[in-house]
Amino acid sequence: MVKATGEARFTTDIALPGMLYGKILRSPHAHAGILHIDAGKALKLPGVRAVITGKELGVPFSLVDIPRKHPANKFPLAQDRVRFIGDEVAAVAAIDEDVAEEALERIQVDYQGLPAVFDVDEAMKPGAPRIHDHAEGNICWRELHGFGDVAGDFEKADVIREDEFTLPSVAHAALEPHCCVAQFDASGKLTLWTSTQSVHRVRLGLAKSLNMREGDVRVIKPFVGGGFGGKYEMMAFEPIAARLSQKAGLPVKLTLTREEVFIGTRLRHRGVFRLKTGFKKDGTLLTIDGRSIFDAGAYNSLGIVANKLSAMHFGLTYRFSSLKYETSRVFTNNPLPGAMRGFGAPQTDFAVESQMDMIAEQLGMDPAELRLKNALQPNCTTPNKLIINSCGLTECIQQARDKSGRHPKGQGAPDGHGAGMACAGFTSGTMNRYRDSEPFSAAVIRANGDGSVNLLVGAADIGQGSDTTLCQIVAEALGITLDDIQIISADTEITPIDQGTYASRITIMVGNAALDAATRIKDRLLTAVAEKLEIHADDLEARDRRIYVKGTPDIGVSFAEAVTLCQRSQGGRPVISDGYYDLGKRGCMDTKSGAPFDPPPAFSFCAHFAQVQADKETGLVKVRSITPAHDIGLAINPMGAEGQLEGSILMGLGYALTEEILWDQGKIMNPSLLDYECPTALDMPEINPIFVETIDPEGPFGAKECGEGAMTPVAPAITNAIHAAIGIRINEIPLTPEKVLAALEKKEVL
Amino acid sequence: MVKATGEARFTTDIALPGMLYGKILRSPHAHAGILHIDAGKALKLPGVRAVITGKELGVPFSLVDIPRKHPANKFPLAQDRVRFIGDEVAAVAAIDEDVAEEALERIQVDYQGLPAVFDVDEAMKPGAPRIHDHAEGNICWRELHGFGDVAGDFEKADVIREDEFTLPSVAHAALEPHCCVAQFDASGKLTLWTSTQSVHRVRLGLAKSLNMREGDVRVIKPFVGGGFGGKYEMMAFEPIAARLSQKAGLPVKLTLTREEVFIGTRLRHRGVFRLKTGFKKDGTLLTIDGRSIFDAGAYNSLGIVANKLSAMHFGLTYRFSSLKYETSRVFTNNPLPGAMRGFGAPQTDFAVESQMDMIAEQLGMDPAELRLKNALQPNCTTPNKLIINSCGLTECIQQARDKSGRHPKGQGAPDGHGAGMACAGFTSGTMNRYRDSEPFSAAVIRANGDGSVNLLVGAADIGQGSDTTLCQIVAEALGITLDDIQIISADTEITPIDQGTYASRITIMVGNAALDAATRIKDRLLTAVAEKLEIHADDLEARDRRIYVKGTPDIGVSFAEAVTLCQRSQGGRPVISDGYYDLGKRGCMDTKSGAPFDPPPAFSFCAHFAQVQADKETGLVKVRSITPAHDIGLAINPMGAEGQLEGSILMGLGYALTEEILWDQGKIMNPSLLDYECPTALDMPEINPIFVETIDPEGPFGAKECGEGAMTPVAPAITNAIHAAIGIRINEIPLTPEKVLAALEKKEVL
Repeated sequence: MVKATGEARFTTDIALPGMLYGKILRSPHAHAGILHIDAGKALKLPGVRAVITGKELGVPFSLVDIPRKHPANKFPLAQDRVRFIGDEVAAVAAIDEDVAEEALERIQVDYQGLPAVFDVDEAMKPGAPRIHDHAEGNICWRELHGFGDVAGDFEKADVIREDEFTLPSVAHAALEPHCCVAQFDASGKLTLWTSTQSVHRVRLGLAKSLNMREGDVRVIKPFVGGGFGGKYEMMAFEPIAARLSQKAGLPVKLTLTREEVFIGTRLRHRGVFRLKTGFKKDGTLLTIDGRSIFDAGAYNSLGIVANKLSAMHFGLTYRFSSLKYETSRVFTNNPLPGAMRGFGAPQTDFAVESQMDMIAEQLGMDPAELRLKNALQPNCTTPNKLIINSCGLTECIQQARDKSGRHPKGQGAPDGHGAGMACAGFTSGTMNRYRDSEPFSAAVIRANGDGSVNLLVGAADIGQGSDTTLCQIVAEALGITLDDIQIISADTEITPIDQGTYASRITIMVGNAALDAATRIKDRLLTAVAEKLEIHADDLEARDRRIYVKGTPDIGVSFAEAVTLCQRSQGGRPVISDGYYDLGKRGCMDTKSGAPFDPPPAFSFCAHFAQVQADKETGLVKVRSITPAHDIGLAINPMGAEGQLEGSILMGLGYALTEEILWDQGKIMNPSLLDYECPTALDMPEINPIFVETIDPEGPFGAKECGEGAMTPVAPAITNAIHAAIGIRINEIPLTPEKVLAALEKKEVL
Repeated sequence: MVKATGEARFTTDIALPGMLYGKILRSPHAHAGILHIDAGKALKLPGVRAVITGKELGVPFSLVDIPRKHPANKFPLAQDRVRFIGDEVAAVAAIDEDVAEEALERIQVDYQGLPAVFDVDEAMKPGAPRIHDHAEGNICWRELHGFGDVAGDFEKADVIREDEFTLPSVAHAALEPHCCVAQFDASGKLTLWTSTQSVHRVRLGLAKSLNMREGDVRVIKPFVGGGFGGKYEMMAFEPIAARLSQKAGLPVKLTLTREEVFIGTRLRHRGVFRLKTGFKKDGTLLTIDGRSIFDAGAYNSLGIVANKLSAMHFGLTYRFSSLKYETSRVFTNNPLPGAMRGFGAPQTDFAVESQMDMIAEQLGMDPAELRLKNALQPNCTTPNKLIINSCGLTECIQQARDKSGRHPKGQGAPDGHGAGMACAGFTSGTMNRYRDSEPFSAAVIRANGDGSVNLLVGAADIGQGSDTTLCQIVAEALGITLDDIQIISADTEITPIDQGTYASRITIMVGNAALDAATRIKDRLLTAVAEKLEIHADDLEARDRRIYVKGTPDIGVSFAEAVTLCQRSQGGRPVISDGYYDLGKRGCMDTKSGAPFDPPPAFSFCAHFAQVQADKETGLVKVRSITPAHDIGLAINPMGAEGQLEGSILMGLGYALTEEILWDQGKIMNPSLLDYECPTALDMPEINPIFVETIDPEGPFGAKECGEGAMTPVAPAITNAIHAAIGIRINEIPLTPEKVLAALEKKEVL
């Protein structure tokens, strides 16, 4: 409601007395040594209150920080070398943004140019410029997975296909740019309001960067205008704003420009996938030998999770008996990639789902039948050690096929219409934890004598609506309504710990924590009411804001009265409870299983059917409809879930057809929402959502994710439909009109 | 620290986007009917966003609201009648204060004058103007207490004295005026930042005034610049600001001017005490027959607590065998009195302690000896049913006498020097509760893996330093330091319930709640560490940020490690606990005892020795030194406690010598800090504080109050010293030079 009226306060709405404005000086060079920085002229500019350089922020950061193997190597401000165009070099706090900008211009930096490299293949060649001393051959990360008898399975195969797919770098393009307000006070305590997906992660990063204790840093998330993964890690601007505030002795607001969001935060990984896949003639999938190389950009970050998740996703859609997968990240002098909706899955599944269509064509099978034949089933363990409980993939394919009305066809239709499909599985929550000792998620609930309930959770609502969903879970558990619940979320000093919004974990993990707390509250209330009614608590139910004898709503008390009774019967003890969620509870923390990662609690599944119309004259593709079927476990908030499907489809549409970061020697050539072509509302196809509710045993009331997995199959469903429509197959998205025309021409020549 | 640097944010520092400024139109008449209000011209003024009148706030409020006997009868905005000069009539929200002021001038109110009455004796006469229909004879409240055989005791008495004492109206004069910012959002939720002593009381009042549920109102207390009782009740300006915000659809800040604080908030009760007291020749106190009448002003409010507490205070200092006490409140057309430091005690004890000196003189006894002879002793029940556990009154008298160096002397000293003394007991916390079902106080503590601890309490630090004291209690319980603890206090949506800062209740009540939570946390940590060390938890202690084997600090773990261990050993459950305090726990909730009020958990005691120098030529009195001895139970924060003694002495000094609200036909003639003469730092005497630590069984670590009780004996100690210095006895404070000179003249004439 407050968003609709404009009353919602975002970070940029915060104004503190005496607040300064921060600006960052960034490297114009892709690779250079810093010989000297002279900030003298900037400091003399009236209105400038502080200038800082690398000397003042000398601790490197990386959300994934593995000593030696993958050390933190990005400094909030460059130390003696810059490694990409946009690398942070110095920063200024001044009385307004104009003065701060002018001060940046007065900072003199003497650079010594160094040879740079922008392509992963070039970067791996002997003699290529070395970007980090610790990374020989510029290999940032490489891991190999092998399960089962790959060679033997290829021998058994009737059909083996080998294809290569190239995926572009794309941007989150959240409407709200990154922004924070930092306030150091005289007692040495830091408060940071920031547009983030994880207050606790940012707090941890800030504490490390500033050599403080986490408890002395308070991170608060106001309303957030979109994250999509791009606001999960702490970014350099956050410790920069903090240090500027500390030095100036005043609060500092630092808002990135749109250009800075493109060049200085994170992008989705670009990469190349090579897949060799073996099938039996009847369509049975036997084995996959995959290889991927991601462009790591100039520094370590959270990025290796893309490699790890891509490995997981090979096992998440179809049954196979063996797998080999080598995945690498290679340093270049490009801006940094990181988490983005789907993280590792859109690339993997584009390759897998494109190749599935090619195989269907080669085998002369219906693409849907091929997928049904191989679809993952419930209650199994995959060759790569994923424990699958609920799985509605088969139902998704069947129901979406039925609802979409048109089956995918091969080889082009005369009117330019065509239909295509793709599937995906996705992790619903992950195991990786904030710190070994901490819970994944916790919640605190207070029930009050007026029947209202307060819920405190660390989870970050970034626009996906998690605050609403969590309140719904508590309301359902306590038999009250959404209006009865006030939620405070994502303030490290107030709310219990949570790791943040990523890996589609909030509903399942924080939802379970909130449910745990609500259940404890309910138990106390039922006990108190049972005592008064002189019956057994098991004979009571909580519904319609009352607690009453099961089946006899008249015999009971209101929820508010129950709270009062409970407090009175327990000597005035308030009705407060904590709750938590930790996979340790369910005993699946066994990392000795050989799994390449900690096992997530559940997985969602989906199948999308796309209908497109391609214009052979112009190369333009119009997506007419998408019919997504999503195994969401249970749709707690169906309207919110539909919104997630719509957003996923918009993003997948851009990934398929228009969006692409354009590079020239490490420089992003289209860092604006005008030049970077996101689809708009006018580009949206008709959407016919289907929710398959499999009631997962691990989810709160059976719920699983639907915010990320649904993005993944959109692009391959569209490109498969284009193939169906006009017979072209391009393994390098986006399928811009130029590429479509070039492919048509080539095809006609052939 | 942040207060010293100016970084602390008070309510007035809050700026919200689009915020308006509110102003209140007040009655210029002491008693009048409202015939018509025309706000048309005000609404036409550019920049005016809302005007409201009584129609829009039609629910009366009073913190004490007893149907029929003492109903809420004050409306936030007058309905059809105004009853004192300053009564709220209409209010405006505009883009700035100047526009709002101008708009007030444009509101046309047609009044019809009514006869008014300003004196309690006049008000009780037949035919006096009736101020409220429900109050015959303008009697607002009257209660009679009787314990023991009063008539028989007077018969046994050797000496009976009967004296009358007149006490002035004085003001709190907190440096920060009352201020709030109200924000109604489109979802119908209200957030109010306000300078208050009780967020939960204000929330309750707002919910009633605005016909909302408490859970839909959030009240937040920023830093507060002093309260002294004057910011405990909800005041009219708070629902006015809220309604203005609701009507304008924007946030509204409403800051009272200094004049408004004087006329429109609360004052200390003026009143008359008549005491008839019977003694044996040897100084044994037998019986008291007391009568008091307080000026209730124009409306019901919290004021009757002054009557109730004055009744309690008769039993709190000396032993007697019977008591009769009649106490009344009488409506007049004067501004409202309410809570102020000591609430009922300064008036009562001025009368009692003045008369004690007169009796000592009459009996030819040393005033200290007379008091020692009758001083209340520990572990007793008073005739008026107060259960006394610890009581260090005797030690206070002895130690203060020894330290002050000079004994009180009667009858004047040639150099104008004189010494005097007075005693008092005071309630440490009260029983009255927010709502029957709610706890008095609750706390939530989270212990984190970095060794930091978060404490959430509803208690309001209004400058008295309760945040610090509560953190000290938690630090002591957990064996950590103040630096380890971050406290969030007084935000109804975040912190558990607390009734607020009044009756010197925070240290003992919220302190016990915090201690309860900390003890639960400690138990969990000790259990986890004991498990690891394979010993019994009873053999461990928590100290110096470690948990270790008693007497062997080397064998143990750090506090941070203990939290980690605990979380890990309990499946990731966070180390969070609630705690609470409720007298129900200790079984002293028996209101059938015949006590005129619920029994407080503990009582503080004190004795002050004052040395003054009086100038017979000018009538000026200079207080040279005060030696206060205070039975504080345990001084948790000695520096803070000394600050409380100093503040109490400054306030008592003003009460004795300079402060007085001057009235003319219901109009306050000195509503400014220039004309209302508070003592300044230059007037402060030398202070030699003594803490008597009796370790009360009910207090956290034995602590009791020291913020209010210490104020009470200051004025009688000074006036007793003046009597000793120059031989005059004036039973009507303040002893201004004019009164001193008049008394001297009268005495010389006699």
